[in-house]
Amino acid sequence: MEMNFNEQCLKKLRLKIKNNPGNLGNVCLIIGTFGFNVGEIEIKHIGPDYKIRDINVYYPCGTSFDELIKTLNKIVGVKVIGVINDVMNIHTGGKIEISSRVKMESLSDVRKIYTPGVASVCMEIFREREKYREYTSIPNNVAIVTDGTAILGLGDIGPVAGMPVMEGKSVLFKELVGINGIPVLLGTKNVDEIINTVKNIAPSFGAIKLEDIKAPECFEIEEKLDELLDIPVVHDDQQGTAVVVLAALLNVEKYTGVKLKDSRIGVIGLGAAGNGISKLLFNYGVEKIFGTDINNEAVLRFEKFGGKGVTLEELMKKSDIVIATTGKPGLIKEDMVKRGQIILALSNPNPEIEPEVARESGAIFAADGKAVNNALAFPGLFRGALDSFATTVNVEMKIEAAREISRNTPEGDLVPNILNREVHKRVAEAVFKAAIKSGVARV
Amino acid sequence: MEMNFNEQCLKKLRLKIKNNPGNLGNVCLIIGTFGFNVGEIEIKHIGPDYKIRDINVYYPCGTSFDELIKTLNKIVGVKVIGVINDVMNIHTGGKIEISSRVKMESLSDVRKIYTPGVASVCMEIFREREKYREYTSIPNNVAIVTDGTAILGLGDIGPVAGMPVMEGKSVLFKELVGINGIPVLLGTKNVDEIINTVKNIAPSFGAIKLEDIKAPECFEIEEKLDELLDIPVVHDDQQGTAVVVLAALLNVEKYTGVKLKDSRIGVIGLGAAGNGISKLLFNYGVEKIFGTDINNEAVLRFEKFGGKGVTLEELMKKSDIVIATTGKPGLIKEDMVKRGQIILALSNPNPEIEPEVARESGAIFAADGKAVNNALAFPGLFRGALDSFATTVNVEMKIEAAREISRNTPEGDLVPNILNREVHKRVAEAVFKAAIKSGVARV
Repeated sequence: MEMNFNEQCLKKLRLKIKNNPGNLGNVCLIIGTFGFNVGEIEIKHIGPDYKIRDINVYYPCGTSFDELIKTLNKIVGVKVIGVINDVMNIHTGGKIEISSRVKMESLSDVRKIYTPGVASVCMEIFREREKYREYTSIPNNVAIVTDGTAILGLGDIGPVAGMPVMEGKSVLFKELVGINGIPVLLGTKNVDEIINTVKNIAPSFGAIKLEDIKAPECFEIEEKLDELLDIPVVHDDQQGTAVVVLAALLNVEKYTGVKLKDSRIGVIGLGAAGNGISKLLFNYGVEKIFGTDINNEAVLRFEKFGGKGVTLEELMKKSDIVIATTGKPGLIKEDMVKRGQIILALSNPNPEIEPEVARESGAIFAADGKAVNNALAFPGLFRGALDSFATTVNVEMKIEAAREISRNTPEGDLVPNILNREVHKRVAEAVFKAAIKSGVARV
Repeated sequence: MEMNFNEQCLKKLRLKIKNNPGNLGNVCLIIGTFGFNVGEIEIKHIGPDYKIRDINVYYPCGTSFDELIKTLNKIVGVKVIGVINDVMNIHTGGKIEISSRVKMESLSDVRKIYTPGVASVCMEIFREREKYREYTSIPNNVAIVTDGTAILGLGDIGPVAGMPVMEGKSVLFKELVGINGIPVLLGTKNVDEIINTVKNIAPSFGAIKLEDIKAPECFEIEEKLDELLDIPVVHDDQQGTAVVVLAALLNVEKYTGVKLKDSRIGVIGLGAAGNGISKLLFNYGVEKIFGTDINNEAVLRFEKFGGKGVTLEELMKKSDIVIATTGKPGLIKEDMVKRGQIILALSNPNPEIEPEVARESGAIFAADGKAVNNALAFPGLFRGALDSFATTVNVEMKIEAAREISRNTPEGDLVPNILNREVHKRVAEAVFKAAIKSGVARV
């Protein structure tokens, strides 16, 4: 996978703007001409004849602001007085830490937390292994493992540069479902080494979350580790994405009346996400899935589990539902859209086709990837798997998670709000029940 | 190493005791005859003619209380009304957790913590690798790695049963010096596998703390990893113990006037601790060190770095200072003690010779291992190493740590109170300076 710098970065431009009609509008226009996007605009100060505003600007990571600032300063009555990196401030010092759940104020506390008191706890677990569930953090610990080869859409930037993402996932885990997500950065990209390393550190964890590992390596790593270990091993880019997409499709089914299982589905891009989506759709009961990818190996892999490789043009012609996860903005042209088609163009930040354009070209339903976020699936999926001491996250658990996400979606929306804790709790319960019912729970 | 169940466990006996003189005394006597030790005694309730007391009882882990309770209940006016496991309560649910350092209340927060905002942080680190120091938790993360083969004095009880100890160390790290100690339990005991696994996960950490790994494997693992990695790798059972013992000896030197460097030192027990102590003493400048161990391999290893292997009897005859870390209570007999000798019998919970007995037999100074706790050394050692981005923890840093611990010891004591945060801070500063001076810092 080549390096892809399309990922959006965020900075705040602080501007002093004279109260002349059109000034703010011109500022926004100019930002747009640079290909940047305007986010929230805050008023920081109101002067006698001017305002100080902070404009959140999303821009392709790595792009300089120098030209933009020069151009803005040329507008009469407009002055850039600062570029603020809000995001960098939030990440300073790292976003997570280890905290103690017990007080340590006296030597007597130390003697209970540590030696000699701790020995009795160890011996209790030594005598009856399952007691680790009661007396250690293990059942609530999930390793967030990456080799740094496919960080977001940025590509192979290495595990250390990927750490802010892993810490971000850890924050989501903790804040949404109370799980301890522990980043594990791998100093190797070798498949066997990765499998062996994760296997060797597995006793510390209740589950393993593989993260931002590139295709095709991610497939073998997930499959072999899930086989080797008696705890769940889930590659989020495959499974998390698949669950959220299935949830979205269940809602589309409800809104459009199109029957998902009877539909011909076309998957554009057969990397980790496309692969995971296709497999889960087959498992759900969809029978006809077309796929396309510029990488022939990916198509062959897709055909092995029942998909049919076609060209992009054929796919667009034959599919009732199209799901694109290619990272290639604008890949789907207007004239490719079929009347009555459903199109989920999920690449971030820029979709394969803008939803409005797709609808104007005949689609009955179209959406982009802004809302279809893994973070809707993985917290509940892992919480339910941990609580049931499941040996794996199987198809039943994933489908029930998708159903529950779909059930909890506000009418008209594609998926629920990611910050709705109640949804995550319900997804966890659904996954817990599915684990019991399908026989992989150990409670 | 064989299994050793000498480790002390702790429970509270709750008794209703009539106010007859001698009742409490008898209770304590009986507890003593069972070979158990009485700790703190709390009054929980005062009745008209009785008291309810909680007696903290330390006992060899795994021993039943049934006979003790029967015997206590035979005393007129005494009734055991409960056995409370205070310690188990403290450990329930595990002692540590991951916490978020940032707020996540709105979608705008999520967009900064996670995508799309996080991308700019990743790219910043990708472009300039050293920025990880600023924007990730890595420089404050220490892996606490064990294979579970030498947990406390309990022996090879496995990594999962050892987790309460690792979490205990993590609590000490956090509470004493603000370090994130992350337990890593290894599912392998193979030396090469361990080395490879730790090497592969090293990018997540600012330093590696090896913990409770048995000898002789621990030596090769520490040595090779410290060579392979550009971050400090420290086996606490060797280095932490050595630093605290050197600190204690510097104080003994002050109290007795005996010159440490000119002394003949005898080290009884050449496992991880004895080995680490001997090496650091040589490094400090001691010239004559005798050693003894029932394991001949350990003696040969000791002779390789300059020690002289002798019998226990010879050692006791020839040494001015004796340091014992054998785990064998009562190993040193009264008649072995030489007039004017200094004896540190450090095995816990029961020393090789009781300090009073040693003094009565002619020692001018004697102490046991109750105060000589690794936890006095490792927090400051790691804090100083992390803050200086040291590539290793070298001899200079260890000796300065010992000197600083010694300097901060209250007059007449062997070492400072473990809970004195100011001491840990000063040790960290001393280690930081030593890292700079000796050229291993990267600041």
